[in-house]
Amino acid sequence: MRTLEWDDEKLELLLIDQRLLPDQFEIFVCRTYQDVVVAIRDMIVRGAPAIGAAAAFGMALAVCRPETGTSDDLHALLRRAAGDLLASRPTAVNLAWGVQRMLKVADDAALTLSDISQRLIAEAKRIAEEDVETNKRMAVHGAALIQDGDTIIHHCNTGSLATVDWGTALGVIRMAHENGKRVHVLVDETRPRLQGARLTAWELEQYRIPYEIICDNAAGYFLRTGRAQKVFFGADRVAANGDVANKVGSYMLALAAHANDVPVFSVFPTTTVDLNLEHGDLIPIEERDCSEVLNIQIDGKPVTPKGAKARNPAFDVTPNHLLTALVTEKGVIYPPFWQNLPRTILET
Amino acid sequence: MRTLEWDDEKLELLLIDQRLLPDQFEIFVCRTYQDVVVAIRDMIVRGAPAIGAAAAFGMALAVCRPETGTSDDLHALLRRAAGDLLASRPTAVNLAWGVQRMLKVADDAALTLSDISQRLIAEAKRIAEEDVETNKRMAVHGAALIQDGDTIIHHCNTGSLATVDWGTALGVIRMAHENGKRVHVLVDETRPRLQGARLTAWELEQYRIPYEIICDNAAGYFLRTGRAQKVFFGADRVAANGDVANKVGSYMLALAAHANDVPVFSVFPTTTVDLNLEHGDLIPIEERDCSEVLNIQIDGKPVTPKGAKARNPAFDVTPNHLLTALVTEKGVIYPPFWQNLPRTILET
Repeated sequence: MRTLEWDDEKLELLLIDQRLLPDQFEIFVCRTYQDVVVAIRDMIVRGAPAIGAAAAFGMALAVCRPETGTSDDLHALLRRAAGDLLASRPTAVNLAWGVQRMLKVADDAALTLSDISQRLIAEAKRIAEEDVETNKRMAVHGAALIQDGDTIIHHCNTGSLATVDWGTALGVIRMAHENGKRVHVLVDETRPRLQGARLTAWELEQYRIPYEIICDNAAGYFLRTGRAQKVFFGADRVAANGDVANKVGSYMLALAAHANDVPVFSVFPTTTVDLNLEHGDLIPIEERDCSEVLNIQIDGKPVTPKGAKARNPAFDVTPNHLLTALVTEKGVIYPPFWQNLPRTILET
Repeated sequence: MRTLEWDDEKLELLLIDQRLLPDQFEIFVCRTYQDVVVAIRDMIVRGAPAIGAAAAFGMALAVCRPETGTSDDLHALLRRAAGDLLASRPTAVNLAWGVQRMLKVADDAALTLSDISQRLIAEAKRIAEEDVETNKRMAVHGAALIQDGDTIIHHCNTGSLATVDWGTALGVIRMAHENGKRVHVLVDETRPRLQGARLTAWELEQYRIPYEIICDNAAGYFLRTGRAQKVFFGADRVAANGDVANKVGSYMLALAAHANDVPVFSVFPTTTVDLNLEHGDLIPIEERDCSEVLNIQIDGKPVTPKGAKARNPAFDVTPNHLLTALVTEKGVIYPPFWQNLPRTILET
């Protein structure tokens, strides 16, 4: 199944529970928009494009189920759902994009509850389908950047699980592999939630792409000793100048690649770009609960002393000068990003 | 107790088992040099100065116990012990230094077995005592570099546990704290073996120095947002030009600090310097078993897919241009390191 699927009969959103992979494969069922809020907040679903689509279905769930109230309070209900969904995670702008797009569909006050429900469901499904198409286009553009024989360092999970299907940066790597290029992936484990060690490794096993997991802090060793030719990661929000907010650790990885003349590519749909923000330091960075850092065990034993405190920023900002190119569904964008990124986004 | 202690009656070396801290405090008893080889290889004892001292006691154990053979095969036995100890871990040069110093003491062929045993034990104890004195001198030199109110990012464990007592980089921070300077430590958890989250946090609890554990990959976030004023780490081997091999991740940390104009200090005794090596790329980098990367659990569940592979370099090299100064027991050394480091080492 896909990362998220809509059940038209039961009016339910089905999510692969990404907290449990690869140890267990379980489905998390959302029957209310609040379920979707929980799923996004607790990272049952994660990845900027995937939470954009999940939030869209959340908006549909807010009004389409039998328990929904009358059409009188419909718009108030949608506004509340939008507010709660927007507050579930602050950094990925795709979330806001998905919610806004749904609000626009519901804007026509003359419509009946049933009409609006059907339109919202149809729109969420459209968002999901578009995501898959967008990702495939990105994959084709990005795959051209990969050489036969490349070893690629990849951060976090940007595969099918981070999107509706196919993925962003990992989709590029998968496309290169399917095109017959030999690639080897050094998978950053991606502390604290280990999306690399858990999810990216699991996907690469399925695609039969050779890989090795590394600790995030070891990427510098492989870059400095000439063992990696490319760095690929996704994005959670991109400012107008091409600064990229992405999973924490992307910045240090990009620094190490840049210091060793290894090109760095960030892959994202244009829905991840926030032209309202001039540069990356304006992007809100989520700080998550420190239990994510502390609740780690080796051989079943807790590692931190009792009462230990932690800090847990979930993202960081990679300044544009460290990035070689940005890969979107509209093509590969090169510097100067402040000029070429808005131009690409705004062209129709 | 200290990280390592010698029992004069039982002729045993006692080590705090650092694999189990902070969950359990247990003593690992070495009765043979082979026990010391295991202790170093399996990181029951770790930290360059601590394994230098442990290896010295290992040399003493090779000949001092009742089961030791005749003095005929004494020198052969010491050579075998030296070889096995040297092979236990390749990167930290203190290990070779400790073993060589012991071999020199045993060099006088005219001595009896009993004489040599006593001399070796005395020499190992001297090495241990000197380590504590050396560390205290380093701490005084380094503490002068810390300002009241500094937030310091620290990598791995460089405290009492990494030495016989007191520590290198963490000793500096402790001395600044004891001198009344307010310091806050951001503790790199230090994957894969989490010496930061386990050992450094445990030590800082005891010293009552405020700290927060961070994922290694989050240091860039704190540096780029101006939340840290200094970076301190130790060293496992330093080349003649001041390139520093240290726990994997030090390089990326130094890069992130350097990119944000935050000073980086490496703290080590002069016994960690290897003047035979012109630069850091000549330092042998240990690659450890990939189980250290893979055997990680969250909430008791394994995180990696079955059959997952990993790479596990234990160290990396920070090139000298990223380092602000080197702190040794002979004082603080500034660039140009290729000139000032050998000069400091060779002066008597």
